[in-house]
Amino acid sequence: MGEQKKTTIILFSGDYDKVMAAYIIANGAAAYDHEVTIFHTFWGLNALRKDEPIQADKGFIEKMFAKMMPRGANKLGLSKMNYAGFGPKMIKDVMKKHNAMPLPDLIDMAKEQDVKLVACQMTVDLFGLTHEEIMEGVEFAGVAAYLADAENGNVNLFI
Amino acid sequence: MGEQKKTTIILFSGDYDKVMAAYIIANGAAAYDHEVTIFHTFWGLNALRKDEPIQADKGFIEKMFAKMMPRGANKLGLSKMNYAGFGPKMIKDVMKKHNAMPLPDLIDMAKEQDVKLVACQMTVDLFGLTHEEIMEGVEFAGVAAYLADAENGNVNLFI
Amino acid sequence: MGEQKKTTIILFSGDYDKVMAAYIIANGAAAYDHEVTIFHTFWGLNALRKDEPIQADKGFIEKMFAKMMPRGANKLGLSKMNYAGFGPKMIKDVMKKHNAMPLPDLIDMAKEQDVKLVACQMTVDLFGLTHEEIMEGVEFAGVAAYLADAENGNVNLFI
Repeated sequence: MGEQKKTTIILFSGDYDKVMAAYIIANGAAAYDHEVTIFHTFWGLNALRKDEPIQADKGFIEKMFAKMMPRGANKLGLSKMNYAGFGPKMIKDVMKKHNAMPLPDLIDMAKEQDVKLVACQMTVDLFGLTHEEIMEGVEFAGVAAYLADAENGNVNLFI
Repeated sequence: MGEQKKTTIILFSGDYDKVMAAYIIANGAAAYDHEVTIFHTFWGLNALRKDEPIQADKGFIEKMFAKMMPRGANKLGLSKMNYAGFGPKMIKDVMKKHNAMPLPDLIDMAKEQDVKLVACQMTVDLFGLTHEEIMEGVEFAGVAAYLADAENGNVNLFI
Repeated sequence: MGEQKKTTIILFSGDYDKVMAAYIIANGAAAYDHEVTIFHTFWGLNALRKDEPIQADKGFIEKMFAKMMPRGANKLGLSKMNYAGFGPKMIKDVMKKHNAMPLPDLIDMAKEQDVKLVACQMTVDLFGLTHEEIMEGVEFAGVAAYLADAENGNVNLFI
């Protein structure tokens, strides 16, 4: 282990609350000079989708996946007490009241702090997404790249 | 990394089974002389709520949150097979049969073993809870305190 | 920390997608010469159940648990978009289309790469399972064994 502290997060979940937790930890760690990577896999990838629909040539299952999954951070549901979308609204209201940052701002802040945002290429393929559907400034990589980051630090989380 | 082994758990989940897993690992690690911290955030905070209702002056959304969320370890649901509360009863029955400790006892044991129990202050604010609603012996802190614990150990889990 | 890199995963979840993520990380880490352990606890134990029913002398609750829980990797549901079993079929179809390995093959591959598969003895007792119901090549151990593996490595995940 060198001098540089590292935080490496696998973000598997696409729940608004869990994605928020991941980005709060990431932003905190970056503020304390950790080298931070968030590796977005499976449902976590949805946090990185652009919120406008992207034209792409796809097969049937890929179209269904793309349609059923939330497009971007602002559309995600809660892991608990989702109540058909009412839960996320309550959380967002209460966050606004307490001047807490909404998720899209937390993601912007992470980018500004040079948190490395990685999209799992295997998931991109599996869900039939294209690179054009993913927001700018995201790298595409696999489990080997994750391990290279994780094995040299010790704050390694799976969220 | 010094000589002292450390286990630092972020407890995000408020599911009975996951909270139980967190406390079993924490108690095990404490028994093997690890310095152990459980950082309770989001739904995980509910495990630390006192089980009697506390009078507090709150806004509407805060009252709703406080009402809808389970009050204390014994009221939590299961992550799987909850079956409207029947699942937790089954688990508790089978635990009693096998002389396994119920969750409130696991929490008491953690306190006796000097496991540091931390409540995320941001979550306390967000859910509109007051310090009086949280059990005795709990510290209040944020992501900076979490990182200070986590970056010097290597058993770091997000549950 | 010695020369040998270590990846130690607590697999708590029994969701098809999360179990798949655990085994993909484990196989990746093994390919990069990590010493890898997957410690299966709670619902994660279901991934190790043999898929044929095993005759065993059990009490009523144990029989109910054994009946309600999925028997083996191929029967698991998804954490999201399960749609009464339709989700796993979609995932499996799309995996086949992209030549991705189905879960039972990922488990076989892990065994071939000497990933240590551990079943949590406390969970085995709690769910009233017998060792005969668990696939060959699995060790039975507790939290002490987990800690012994985890405290000497730094890629420690709870899935």
